[in-house]
Amino acid sequence: MAAFSISEQPAKVAPNTQTNPKNWHIRDDPITWKNWHKHVNWIHATLLLSTPLIALYGLLMFEIQRKTAIWAVFYYYITGLGITAGHHRLWAHRAYKVSRPFEIFLILACSGAVEGSIRWWCKGHRAHHRWTDTDADPYNADKGLIYSHIGWMLLKQNPNRVGKADISDLNADPLIMFQHKNYWIFALFMGFLFPTMVAGFGWGDWRGGFFFAAVLRLVFVHHATFCVNSLAHYLGDTPFDDRRSPRDHFITALLSLGEGYHNFHHEFPMDYRNAVKFYQYDPTKWLIRFLSYFGVAHHLKKFPENEINKSMIIMKQKKLDREKLKLDWGKPLDKLPIYTFEQYVEYAKENNWICIEGVIHDVSEFIEEHPGGRSILTASIGKDMTASFNGGVYDHSNAARNLMASLRVGIVAGGGEVECRKTK
Amino acid sequence: MAAFSISEQPAKVAPNTQTNPKNWHIRDDPITWKNWHKHVNWIHATLLLSTPLIALYGLLMFEIQRKTAIWAVFYYYITGLGITAGHHRLWAHRAYKVSRPFEIFLILACSGAVEGSIRWWCKGHRAHHRWTDTDADPYNADKGLIYSHIGWMLLKQNPNRVGKADISDLNADPLIMFQHKNYWIFALFMGFLFPTMVAGFGWGDWRGGFFFAAVLRLVFVHHATFCVNSLAHYLGDTPFDDRRSPRDHFITALLSLGEGYHNFHHEFPMDYRNAVKFYQYDPTKWLIRFLSYFGVAHHLKKFPENEINKSMIIMKQKKLDREKLKLDWGKPLDKLPIYTFEQYVEYAKENNWICIEGVIHDVSEFIEEHPGGRSILTASIGKDMTASFNGGVYDHSNAARNLMASLRVGIVAGGGEVECRKTK
Ligand code: HEM
Ligand code: HEM
Ligand SMILES: [Fe+2]
Ligand SMILES: [Fe+2]
Ligand SMILES: [Fe+2]
Ligand SMILES: [Fe+2]
Repeated sequence: MAAFSISEQPAKVAPNTQTNPKNWHIRDDPITWKNWHKHVNWIHATLLLSTPLIALYGLLMFEIQRKTAIWAVFYYYITGLGITAGHHRLWAHRAYKVSRPFEIFLILACSGAVEGSIRWWCKGHRAHHRWTDTDADPYNADKGLIYSHIGWMLLKQNPNRVGKADISDLNADPLIMFQHKNYWIFALFMGFLFPTMVAGFGWGDWRGGFFFAAVLRLVFVHHATFCVNSLAHYLGDTPFDDRRSPRDHFITALLSLGEGYHNFHHEFPMDYRNAVKFYQYDPTKWLIRFLSYFGVAHHLKKFPENEINKSMIIMKQKKLDREKLKLDWGKPLDKLPIYTFEQYVEYAKENNWICIEGVIHDVSEFIEEHPGGRSILTASIGKDMTASFNGGVYDHSNAARNLMASLRVGIVAGGGEVECRKTK
Repeated sequence: MAAFSISEQPAKVAPNTQTNPKNWHIRDDPITWKNWHKHVNWIHATLLLSTPLIALYGLLMFEIQRKTAIWAVFYYYITGLGITAGHHRLWAHRAYKVSRPFEIFLILACSGAVEGSIRWWCKGHRAHHRWTDTDADPYNADKGLIYSHIGWMLLKQNPNRVGKADISDLNADPLIMFQHKNYWIFALFMGFLFPTMVAGFGWGDWRGGFFFAAVLRLVFVHHATFCVNSLAHYLGDTPFDDRRSPRDHFITALLSLGEGYHNFHHEFPMDYRNAVKFYQYDPTKWLIRFLSYFGVAHHLKKFPENEINKSMIIMKQKKLDREKLKLDWGKPLDKLPIYTFEQYVEYAKENNWICIEGVIHDVSEFIEEHPGGRSILTASIGKDMTASFNGGVYDHSNAARNLMASLRVGIVAGGGEVECRKTK
């Protein structure tokens, strides 16, 4: 394996997803007017479609109180970070470790985002990383922006299709399993009751607490984090690897609490950062780093900078190589006929040949164009002008060197006029 | 010569400048308090130092009339373009051809810039291109910003030092020779009398015509065009070739009527453009192109786009190669010991070796860090995991590939486990 070799295959096959005809699943049938209701995941659909409607109703009917607005925004960050710092970076990727009390706080926070149990979320997410852009990827970006944003939840998934992921670590964690088993209690309480109660007991705004701090806030958290599966696989650059769909974009980062540097993230998933540059927007990283100063977060994993730079350089090389392919670099040397130096001298006059660096150039068309003058080229025909070309007379530019390559017609055996080989 | 090969030598030797002790010249002595007046080129010094003083006097003593100001700016462009479109691109580089009447207009215009006869200017400029950054370059940028801006004119030059340039074409041109022989008449008339007379006869402002349209305007034209020898060899990028000092910068272009894309220009001197991109500032190019629509300018020379792009790509490659050198790419394959597959299997257990793509990797330190899990790596020890690594189990990213390179410890003879070579 050469240091700079790059695999060009798209690598989109998920090897563990042979469909067994015995395991028939509704998803194997196309969606029709007759069977569509069997395709719908009714629990997800009810949650995801009713919340925006309820929030809209609240927005149209009632004024938002100042205190409730502040609380809603604050709780948006708490629960949003519960997903990005908790679900995603801590549990799905094990990018850092936290103290037990803070883990409990995170479990409560992420439950308020109502995106499924930690165990369920991480299982899907690990499969997403392992089988990115294949049929085994639960939010396969190849199926379109809407599918990867929300469609994959609204429709039933064939469990045999989704890639298997190792979640033995989560299964072994009693806290994670407790949340998983009692998930609807956690979700109901942290997602709806708690935000309503804070506003209700706090400043008497029960209604605002429900419509805005609970439901409207939830809609925002949902779509912000869903963007990581949709927008982050469509919008932006691929500075680290372009074999798959994840992309880096500032806008996605803004929307998703810093998860928008997704090309980096798929390349270095166990890095606690999604953005490496200090000027990039990654508040989740900032939070984790801040907590680490107090020992609350620790064992922050960082991929070595050397390796990160290597990925970037390989991508730059790949882009440059593509640009190179668009240009004419002259006939490759191994495709040229070989002449002895004596043959070269013999044929040179009638063909306007000049030998430079062991290569014969036909200057017939170029003589009139030569910036160094016509006569100087005419006088060079049939000679070895290597030294003259390289500074003996004039040290030519790269441009001249490239131009020369396009005039190649042959090779001189032995590389040119060699003193010791001269016959007289 | 490989298509992408780049010469790394600085190439700063001018081969035709052996100093002959018999040809002693004042410049061979250092400047001292005693001999400095012998070093000074008094004609140049008088012109170049008196004009700014006269202009300053005029600015302090008299108001500028509106009409005179407009005329001065207009004449600045006429005479400035006389230098850039005339001296430089037409006569020094023969980048295009013009009709005789327009050539006469250009001769008058450039005479008004008072920068020496066309013949003298082009001789020096051709030497500058041929011997850039060497002792034979009359405005050698290696001698400092001030020397290349104005110092080279204020001091006498050793004519044996300055590189010889072929100006047979100019010597053969009767118009050019006529201007050369009668230069001081041309310069005096076009530089001072004509601009004064226009303002004097035109709107009675003889004094303003002299101080502003003649002298102040001249100072601006001088320093604008001098910047091409100074600033254009110091400020900016080298997108086409970095072996010599010329550089591309927007600011230099703004100051010098478009001559600031000087890295391009030294690489493609016979191109009538200095800026290739439409959004770059090159009014001299715009003028030439405009004139070509009326047949006044014709035979505009352009270097093929393919060659221009090649130069740019070679420079990008050079920069990328330098970045590559800064990183650790793992031990080169030809520096690794070679084992038979049987030896590999034998030693693997105790050393934690995994063979992938014919290369043996020591994963002792990495087992705990492997994002795909500890057990999967432990189970891979002593086997050929090429297929698993490349998608059989998981298709690894470029990052993983690079990381793997840093774990190399040996090579398997024959490239890995080969079916046909198995003993049983
Ligand atoms: C096929 C081979 C050649 C090609 C493609 C070529 C191309 C060029 C080009 C593009 C330039 C412009 C300046 C630059 O880009 O460096 C140039 C200048 C020049 N070339 Fe060549 N050249 C060739 C062979 C030669 C040879 C064999 C000689 C000498 C015996 C020579 C002598 C010169 C000189 C003296 C100049 C300087 C022009 C000046 O700036 O005054 N060239 N050549
Ligand atoms: C020394 C060799 C190896 C290195 C340096 C390495 C490195 C990595 C890295 C960096 C990842 C993270 C994802 C990525 O960047 O692609 C990864 C993931 C993985 N590796 Fe390896 N690996 C090696 C060998 C293997 C072998 C031999 C296997 C299988 C037998 C394997 C199985 C996996 C799996 C299944 C994952 C997926 C983790 C997930 O996203 O769920 N690795 N490996
Ligand atoms: Fe993703
Ligand atoms: Fe992830
Ligand atoms: Fe220059
Ligand atoms: Fe030039």
